[in-house]
Amino acid sequence: MTDHSIDRIPDGTFLDVPGWRGGAVAAGLKPSGGLDLALLVADAARPVAGVFTRNRLPAAPVLFCRDRLRERPEARALLINAGIANAMTGAEGLATTRLMAERVEAYVGGPALVLSTGVIGVQLPREVTLAGIDAVADALGTERASGELVAQAIMTTDTKPKSVALRVELPPMGDAPATTATVGGVAKGSGMIHPNMATMLAAFATDAPVAKATLEAVLRRAVDRSFHEITVDGDTSTNDTVFLFGGEPEAGPVITDDDPRLSPLEAAITQAMQTLATAIIHDGEGVSRVMELRVSGARSRDEARLVAEAVGRSALVKTALAGGDPNFGRILAAAANAGVALEPESLSLSLGGIAVFGEGLPLPVDAEQLDEAFGQPDVLAELDLGLGTAAVRRFVADLTKEYVHINAEYTT
Amino acid sequence: MTDHSIDRIPDGTFLDVPGWRGGAVAAGLKPSGGLDLALLVADAARPVAGVFTRNRLPAAPVLFCRDRLRERPEARALLINAGIANAMTGAEGLATTRLMAERVEAYVGGPALVLSTGVIGVQLPREVTLAGIDAVADALGTERASGELVAQAIMTTDTKPKSVALRVELPPMGDAPATTATVGGVAKGSGMIHPNMATMLAAFATDAPVAKATLEAVLRRAVDRSFHEITVDGDTSTNDTVFLFGGEPEAGPVITDDDPRLSPLEAAITQAMQTLATAIIHDGEGVSRVMELRVSGARSRDEARLVAEAVGRSALVKTALAGGDPNFGRILAAAANAGVALEPESLSLSLGGIAVFGEGLPLPVDAEQLDEAFGQPDVLAELDLGLGTAAVRRFVADLTKEYVHINAEYTT
Repeated sequence: MTDHSIDRIPDGTFLDVPGWRGGAVAAGLKPSGGLDLALLVADAARPVAGVFTRNRLPAAPVLFCRDRLRERPEARALLINAGIANAMTGAEGLATTRLMAERVEAYVGGPALVLSTGVIGVQLPREVTLAGIDAVADALGTERASGELVAQAIMTTDTKPKSVALRVELPPMGDAPATTATVGGVAKGSGMIHPNMATMLAAFATDAPVAKATLEAVLRRAVDRSFHEITVDGDTSTNDTVFLFGGEPEAGPVITDDDPRLSPLEAAITQAMQTLATAIIHDGEGVSRVMELRVSGARSRDEARLVAEAVGRSALVKTALAGGDPNFGRILAAAANAGVALEPESLSLSLGGIAVFGEGLPLPVDAEQLDEAFGQPDVLAELDLGLGTAAVRRFVADLTKEYVHINAEYTT
Repeated sequence: MTDHSIDRIPDGTFLDVPGWRGGAVAAGLKPSGGLDLALLVADAARPVAGVFTRNRLPAAPVLFCRDRLRERPEARALLINAGIANAMTGAEGLATTRLMAERVEAYVGGPALVLSTGVIGVQLPREVTLAGIDAVADALGTERASGELVAQAIMTTDTKPKSVALRVELPPMGDAPATTATVGGVAKGSGMIHPNMATMLAAFATDAPVAKATLEAVLRRAVDRSFHEITVDGDTSTNDTVFLFGGEPEAGPVITDDDPRLSPLEAAITQAMQTLATAIIHDGEGVSRVMELRVSGARSRDEARLVAEAVGRSALVKTALAGGDPNFGRILAAAANAGVALEPESLSLSLGGIAVFGEGLPLPVDAEQLDEAFGQPDVLAELDLGLGTAAVRRFVADLTKEYVHINAEYTT
């Protein structure tokens, strides 16, 4: 990715992408009374690809959007509410989502998508929500401040709004000259033990015109290299969704799989997603330390993933991480719980670049140096199984008293 | 089990079982300087069955005992140390375990088993440990106080020692008259998020003579109905072990599978294990509330287990439990993460006997009554999937700030 010319736009938001307007209001869905309803509107319908939760009880907006995109993968607007997730709400909840989309469509004159995040098992109050849509439709702007309001409105336990915008140089292609494309995104999410269990929502857009099939493939690859790396056990909430909007198809020859513009554009999209995925894990509920866990030397990618997930969900590993305790025994014991056959003699583990275990035994280490390395806010753990060549990477957040405090007190 | 005449012996310990002596010393393996080495000795070799961890990096004592019992399922002594787990210690650790067994055998004149619990990845200091064995071999008694010392010496983060003794009436059989048998046990364990991740050790004995194959089968069934119900995701530590010692084979006609004495004896053994399993989960690290989760109506026992484990390991469920928050949305969302296909319309959930979800929708409830029911130290959650007839039960401990405190500060 460093081969491409990508610049981060300082304080950029989703609205740095040309052709989009946005805004947010306090509709009355959050008990706090804060901003809770955001609307993003493009100046024409745009191709869009989505990745949805694998949870077996998907929320009403997920059911709605999944069906919508299957019929017709384009939209002109995205409405997001926070406060109430509209999950476990049956036919009534689904009807509410449809009404919300219709109300937005009446204003924008094109197809609308709807996302929700917040408390599960509670119906959205229809009158209040529809009145909120009337208000937010009147409050759209193109300036950065509007983009910031959108990022704030979709927060639940997030402590910081999460926005990004990048510019990337695209080479000439056929009749099209070299151009600069913009990628913008907004996200919310912070549940960091089973990260996907607290809803993660994200939307990205670019003004570069991308063919629908290509857009879909780019989204899947970029999510695999960003949001999926911050999940630790494949768990997903009822509402998790990532959207990627392409540019206006009339903007020029669309980018397809063998287009030289695809590589820099995909690099920028991936970087934008990585930026927000990193922001999410660092803003995890009560998170004080993040471990980048690299599992290598596995017989297969599946085995590497199982081991990484067993370590990543271990409460003993996550509490050791909170305490800054370089407790490699807990990491190895958790790895050995993955159901993957291991050879003690072939295992090796380094923490913060310091080898701590090899050839079946703890290695002599300078304890002070190790404590120092493991006391940083970001620590690297490299676990080589010594059995093959497959590898995966996961980011693991620590488990702090603050996490428990937030989740024992806050109803989601 | 209520059909059998079983009496709990007040303040009973393992040593209430006739024929056993025991004691404990502070050998210097715990940084606290407390009791850390316990020895139990029978007046002759006894048949013994064991259930061991499924962790793929089993500790040295597990490797040793597993091999031992495979060769010859009997022992006269059980040595248990706390402070150092002798896990991830390679050939040197295994040699230490062998030396420990040999030293005990030199004193007792029969085969010895060895268990360890404590910090992983550290070698047991041989001189110190062997000197401790010399000391504890000199400190054996048959009185209850000695049994209490044993229970104390094997604790790590446990806040209370865990002992039990029961008496059970056995009917006449052939030439043998009606008798009273005793069952005694001792256990340690308290890691309550992935419960098996913090080592669970337990040893039980009876004076009733039981055939070896029958002893093995009784142990497996009783563990399934006790210790396995307090595990939430099948994770096991490097050291987990449960032993069951039978009585002296010469004590009379041994109990085999079709003996009328088996049913009351097995009931007593199961009850003893349930008593200590319950003590473990209530003494879980920082545990303030325990949820008995009954999953029913599953298509298969495996699917029921997957759902129960997905709920039982959900940090959002466990923190809601800590907060006394009857957040059924989190329970259903976690169940839907089990990878098991669910039908929202056929699901039903009750908390503390109050129906909260059915026919795809939250049910109207008296919130005050529900809060009251869910605020008890023991709460019942009944999740009926409505898809079949299979069911499982699991006990789920809450996740508190205190748990994090213990595990972030304490090196295991």
